[in-house]
Formats: sequence, structure tokens, C-alpha cells
Amino acid sequence: MKILLKIAYLGTAYCGYQVQPNGVTVQEKLNEAAKAVFGVDCDIVGCSRTDSGVHARGFCATVTKKGSASLETSVPAARIPRALNVRLPEDISVLEAREVADDFHPRYGVASKEYEYLFYNGAERDPFLIDRAWHIPRQLDAAAVAAMNEAAAAFVGRHDFSALRDGDPDEKDPVRHVLAASVTRSGDFISFRVRADGFLYHMVRVMAGTLLEVGRGKIPAKEISWRMSEKNRKLFGATAPAHGLYLDRVFYPAE
Amino acid sequence: MKILLKIAYLGTAYCGYQVQPNGVTVQEKLNEAAKAVFGVDCDIVGCSRTDSGVHARGFCATVTKKGSASLETSVPAARIPRALNVRLPEDISVLEAREVADDFHPRYGVASKEYEYLFYNGAERDPFLIDRAWHIPRQLDAAAVAAMNEAAAAFVGRHDFSALRDGDPDEKDPVRHVLAASVTRSGDFISFRVRADGFLYHMVRVMAGTLLEVGRGKIPAKEISWRMSEKNRKLFGATAPAHGLYLDRVFYPAE
Repeated sequence: MKILLKIAYLGTAYCGYQVQPNGVTVQEKLNEAAKAVFGVDCDIVGCSRTDSGVHARGFCATVTKKGSASLETSVPAARIPRALNVRLPEDISVLEAREVADDFHPRYGVASKEYEYLFYNGAERDPFLIDRAWHIPRQLDAAAVAAMNEAAAAFVGRHDFSALRDGDPDEKDPVRHVLAASVTRSGDFISFRVRADGFLYHMVRVMAGTLLEVGRGKIPAKEISWRMSEKNRKLFGATAPAHGLYLDRVFYPAE
Repeated sequence: MKILLKIAYLGTAYCGYQVQPNGVTVQEKLNEAAKAVFGVDCDIVGCSRTDSGVHARGFCATVTKKGSASLETSVPAARIPRALNVRLPEDISVLEAREVADDFHPRYGVASKEYEYLFYNGAERDPFLIDRAWHIPRQLDAAAVAAMNEAAAAFVGRHDFSALRDGDPDEKDPVRHVLAASVTRSGDFISFRVRADGFLYHMVRVMAGTLLEVGRGKIPAKEISWRMSEKNRKLFGATAPAHGLYLDRVFYPAE
């Protein structure tokens, strides 16, 4: 069998999800725990990379024996979260585990993913939100949040998102299908949620930085569509910091 | 004038509020920031001590020139929070500042204080709640929470709380007036709130540990009153860990 894990992690201490030469990653910690629980070296394949400092509430990853399409274990799926969690650092938690088909691929099989970008709009910083939300001390009023929501709506649809990403503009196909995008306020929090079939490098963070500029009146919401058609990164806002970003949910076709 | 500050802090990194020979305290950090902002050594007097690891959402403290009953400053009260916050570590935040009379005493003048003790009752640990709630993985059902709330109600009134504290039983007058105490569930959180005119050493944490035993059926809610009358610490639960405790609000007579 192949095991699909649903994982939450506080990204602050990690250089993102995926194993890399420098810095500790979430994948590395999962590898160590899986080896201890299943008694063999394992392959842990994640649903995506996440940047350093980005958090996850519902990251998905599969576990198989290293070099194999499956895993033999006597540990029932229902017991796997607890078994892994006692071997994982406190800032990573396996929430669920279930069996999936051997041909299930946690990254190529993704139908869509939903991210939340969290702004904290209280006047003074909140000690309980360090590394968990982007603090914007200056008040964004109801009209500003409405404009941000209008701008978010302009992201929805199948578009060329060349202008809303960082890195090499020729790296890969820049067309993505955004299924939903909205901005809502709840108390001192402003939440930007976006669901798409895939995301370019820094795409959610560039969207979040752009929405802040919309809220501040620097970019009119009505101009989002034509600015996107210009395919010019400079027409959009700064890349929002990683620590406000949460990979919230991953959807697979069967679900 | 004398300045009253309302402060929030994440207690994780601190050996409590009050300056002590070993370990960093919140008071020490406030002293450093106040000296930088007001240009003189200051006395910072807090509304209470808090244990190492305990958090605060509404701690109160006064600032005066060292050895004096007041402070001369050209900084308007409304600007003081921001001025202090840029000099404080991120896990301490001054939320408000206002002028009070020179004879105002932030500790002796307290009418009552309200604490919250937070239990996290999700099956698997939540990485975002490390050091912020006491994780109780085993589900406490509605009947258990109702029993906890019934037990909390038994704390209300003017009682001898000798049995609900740690440390020297002869230390001081053990009578306190609990004005309100309740237990409520919201999603996976169980919150114990208690307001009193004062608290003995570890009193809220012994109450919280006791309420957990009530929820687990080890201590019947109906026995709280007679157990209190026995004045025997052994008839109550273990001291709950510091990291679930929040000093929430401080009330002064004028308010």
C-alpha cells in the first residue's frame, strides 16, 4: 500500500518543504520519522514545494519504501499519525493518514490547491502573531477591503500570470486556472484566499503584495485585468513576506 | 504624570514578568525600552507577577522616573505604544498608554483580574499552538465540559483557597473572592475563564488541572465545595502547565 499523509506545520524554522543541501526542511524530518516508524528508508513525496517560512495546515505527502511504489507495514493507517508525531518535532504534525492506490501521485495528481494569505491589521503588533501574519499597522477600512476583494476577483479564470510571479519569466507555462479568490475581514485580520489548479513561483505572495497596494489606493482594482495582460511584473506590488502564507487545502480529483 | 501601559506578551521566552537575578524577564525589557524612549532610568511597576512561560493579553504596568512618583516627557500618550514597541522585542507589545494619577498603584489598586486557561482538545497536536495551549488529545465530550463548568461554578464566591495553590500553605491570607468562573468549548478549544480579586500562587493552574480531572471523571464536580473545605491540596488535580495560561484583563475601580 501507499500512505497519503495530511500534515500541518509551522514553517518558521524550516527552509521550506523540500529536502535541499543547506538548511533543515520538513521533508527531512518526515523522512527520519518514517524510517523510525516503518523500519525502512522511505520516499516521502510532497504535493508541492513551499518557500522558507511558509506554513501549511493541510499539506499532502505520500510515503513508500525507498525506490518502491508501496510500503509494507503492520501499523494500521489510523495509528500512523500518532506514531509519526511522537518522532516529529512539535512544529510538524501529521493530522491524518490513509491508504491510496500505488499509482496515486501527490503532486501530479493534484486537482487544485488553496492558499490563505493572512494580514494582521491591528494598530500595534500582536506578540502571538510573530511569523504568522503580515502586520499592516495602518488601518484598511471597509472600502479598502472591498477594493481588495474586487481585485482578487480579477484573478479568477484561466490567465497568463507571467506578471504575478518572481524568477525566470521563461521558466515554464505561465497559464494557470484560478478557481476562486476573495478577500475578507474578520476583526483585525484580513484574509486573502485563492484556489487554483497550480501556482507559479511566489504567485500568491505577489498577489498578496498587489492586493495591499490596491487597499492602499496605489493600484486601482479595475486595472488588474489589463495590467495582467501587459505581462509586466513591475505593474504589480511587492512580493509579500512568506510568514503570512498558509497552504490550506489540497484537492485531488476523487474528492 | 504617571503612565499606565497595557501590554501583551508571549511568555515563552521569559522567566515571568518580574525582574529576577537569573533569566530574562518582561519587566527588564520594558525597563530598557522605557529608558531609551524617556531618556531616564525608569521604575516599571506591574499589576502582578506571572510565572515563567505564562502569557498576557492585557498586563498593566506603570512607568515613572526611577525613584519618583511621576515622569516628565514630551511624548504624547498616544505615541508611547509605538515608541516603546520599536525598542521592544517582537514578543512584547504595548497596546495602549494613558495618564493616571500619581497615587495610582498598578498592583495594590487592582479591583480584579481575569485569566484564561486554554486547553486544546484536538486529537493530534497543532503546530500553531506550541506553548500556547495545553494539548489534551483524548476527546472531552459535551457532558465532560458541562461537568467542568459545574465544577468551575463551585469556585465562585469568597472562599479559603488553601487547597488550590502550591507553595508554602502559611504564606499569606488564603481567602480570595472569585467573581466569575466558567468553562466553555469552541471547536477544539476548551476555555476556562476565572475572574477574582486576587490569586494565590499557581491558583489558576491548580484549578485548571483540577477541572481536567473533573472532565475525565476522576473528581466529581459536586465534590469541589467539600474538598475545598478540607483545605488539602492532595484532594485536587495536578498543576496545569504554564503555557496554557493567559492574564487576560485587569480591572481597576474607576473602570
